[in-house]
Amino acid sequence: MKNIAILGSTGSIGTQTLDIVRENKELKITSLAVDSNITLLETQIREFMPNLVCVYQEEKAKQLKDNIKDLTVKVVTGMEGLIACAIEQDTDTVVTAMVGMIGIRPTIEAIKAGKNIALANKETLVTAGHIIMPLIKEKKVSLLPVDSEHSAIFQSLNGEDKKKAFKILLTASGGPFRGKKQSELNNIAPKDALKHPNWSMGRKITIDSATMVNKGLEVLEAAWLFDMDLDKIQVVVHPQSIIHSMVEYVDGSIIAQMGVPDMKLPIQYALFYPSRLPLSQGERVDFAKLKQLTFEEPDMDTFFGLRLAYEAGGFGGSMPTVYNAANEWAVAAFLEGRIKFLEIPALIREAMKQHQLIDNPSLNEILNTEQQTYDFVRGYTESGALKL
Amino acid sequence: MKNIAILGSTGSIGTQTLDIVRENKELKITSLAVDSNITLLETQIREFMPNLVCVYQEEKAKQLKDNIKDLTVKVVTGMEGLIACAIEQDTDTVVTAMVGMIGIRPTIEAIKAGKNIALANKETLVTAGHIIMPLIKEKKVSLLPVDSEHSAIFQSLNGEDKKKAFKILLTASGGPFRGKKQSELNNIAPKDALKHPNWSMGRKITIDSATMVNKGLEVLEAAWLFDMDLDKIQVVVHPQSIIHSMVEYVDGSIIAQMGVPDMKLPIQYALFYPSRLPLSQGERVDFAKLKQLTFEEPDMDTFFGLRLAYEAGGFGGSMPTVYNAANEWAVAAFLEGRIKFLEIPALIREAMKQHQLIDNPSLNEILNTEQQTYDFVRGYTESGALKL
Repeated sequence: MKNIAILGSTGSIGTQTLDIVRENKELKITSLAVDSNITLLETQIREFMPNLVCVYQEEKAKQLKDNIKDLTVKVVTGMEGLIACAIEQDTDTVVTAMVGMIGIRPTIEAIKAGKNIALANKETLVTAGHIIMPLIKEKKVSLLPVDSEHSAIFQSLNGEDKKKAFKILLTASGGPFRGKKQSELNNIAPKDALKHPNWSMGRKITIDSATMVNKGLEVLEAAWLFDMDLDKIQVVVHPQSIIHSMVEYVDGSIIAQMGVPDMKLPIQYALFYPSRLPLSQGERVDFAKLKQLTFEEPDMDTFFGLRLAYEAGGFGGSMPTVYNAANEWAVAAFLEGRIKFLEIPALIREAMKQHQLIDNPSLNEILNTEQQTYDFVRGYTESGALKL
Repeated sequence: MKNIAILGSTGSIGTQTLDIVRENKELKITSLAVDSNITLLETQIREFMPNLVCVYQEEKAKQLKDNIKDLTVKVVTGMEGLIACAIEQDTDTVVTAMVGMIGIRPTIEAIKAGKNIALANKETLVTAGHIIMPLIKEKKVSLLPVDSEHSAIFQSLNGEDKKKAFKILLTASGGPFRGKKQSELNNIAPKDALKHPNWSMGRKITIDSATMVNKGLEVLEAAWLFDMDLDKIQVVVHPQSIIHSMVEYVDGSIIAQMGVPDMKLPIQYALFYPSRLPLSQGERVDFAKLKQLTFEEPDMDTFFGLRLAYEAGGFGGSMPTVYNAANEWAVAAFLEGRIKFLEIPALIREAMKQHQLIDNPSLNEILNTEQQTYDFVRGYTESGALKL
């Protein structure tokens, strides 16, 4: 029996994780945490009967308590509640599937409490990799990536001497605007950017795919996860999303992991590693039907949010936090119709320009940098200074 | 220091193995064996100074002895000499790079003498897999494939639970006549069939690629090497020869090994496994330049030699020996202009039809079946009974 906590259980990764738990009797849910969707959470509680749930928003937490008076499950709230879910005593593995930097503190506390991490919250490593990775080693817990690309890299390193890895080839679908130039992207509406060609995902990550900032975050995440220099992480645009990523070795040999674009595959892999379970109802790749796999270089002039990730990673320290926080704010503003599509990377660029770098920032310094970045991009946008 | 014997040192695999030995000071040549090319062998002897060499043809062996009187290297001949090279006492690994069933006895004797095998002579496993594989286990030696496809499968199984392998996807370039129909293949001349689009190889294997009998032999070899049922080994035509083969797991995940088509990569891998060495002067795959990888189903109606391999493997016992021996004779006859291109698989089919199956044949029964098959196909061809 493996006991699982899911932080972010009503999102795309959360619900797909629960699909897998439903089909596997050896998995049990110990705790669930959500931001505010108490309707779906209540259904999940009644099906999976966790010991503990957290609703981040206090008002919603109170409502939920009223709604489930007939049950014994404990309801907690806020960051304190989220951390309580992350360190719930019976839990073996915490699936960190929340969106954004809110994941950092619960992830750190879970590791400190000796929990294994199935990592879907890439912001944690992007901003606090220098804190997380040594802690993982110290506490001897495992950190398994849930992102399909990082799962593919992990699988392509299986049984290999990591020191012989020469390069990571991180594949990218290129998103819905692949092949377009900046002039064609000026008047993109949120509904256009929310149409991802291959993957069904949450709204934030779908916009990040359209700007390729998601790929930038993945580059920064991969650097921490696989202890690889940024110049050894190359993005390869591969629109079919069949090759999920590759590792090239010193001898020129490349190991790749492929599959249909279905997040259940990497989620299940992270939960059952090192075993592989038959994927129920999972489609299989049929190469004769596929006919071809294609490849391109990423267009980092149009999608300059990707180039900015390499720059942020090159600075290191607090700069990736600025990159990520500016993007979080900008995506929310874009979805609300307050800024234009290309203003997302432009805001990241401006935020990075004005930031005073902190080397090796503490958790508090990371969280302060996040807040300062939010304040800066809000002010900058409202001042009308933002120009493309 | 690793001591290497090469059986078939003047062929394509043999000379490329020596290129690798030349560049790696930790490899030493202990013995070399050739059929008849004593000019090249003498150059090799003077460079690599082996303890022992075999020239299979007795007359040529005598000539060589005269030519290298100034050296202390011992010269032996015939099957006895070939076996002496295979079991030379200082040798750690025997590279079996001879063409055809002549490789069976030296390979068996090398294993019995506790040598590791770098297997490039696929006929050994195709015809005597039921003898070789248990012997490998018993003697606790390693058997590492040199064929690029089998090396790719081996690499794709690295660090994985073999029981979770669901299917082997064996890639095939399709050879120079991919896409052609039978009617277009009637008047193929040897020089046309000797033009392989991707790989630079010996004459026999190049013809086998054109008929796809080579892929048939590889299917049979893979079944033994990886203990996989034939119906779980699927040939995927992939004309660019970048993906060297793949393994699909029960969860739908596919691990693939890729590289430029260069035999030095799998040879070096077999010699240094589990380590990977930088490949000197080796080209690297550039996906943006490649642009695409394409896939097709094999046309087993036109290239029915491939289908016959599955049939031979389905019968098992002595039938794969008939498949292989009929093909060996037919390819030689085709290269000499005595039969037509499509008569190669037709002769295999006729030889298989008339054969009285022997289950679990002994080494002698295998060698007798080989001789009987040669006699049958020669007689059948000379009688004029061969019709397409």
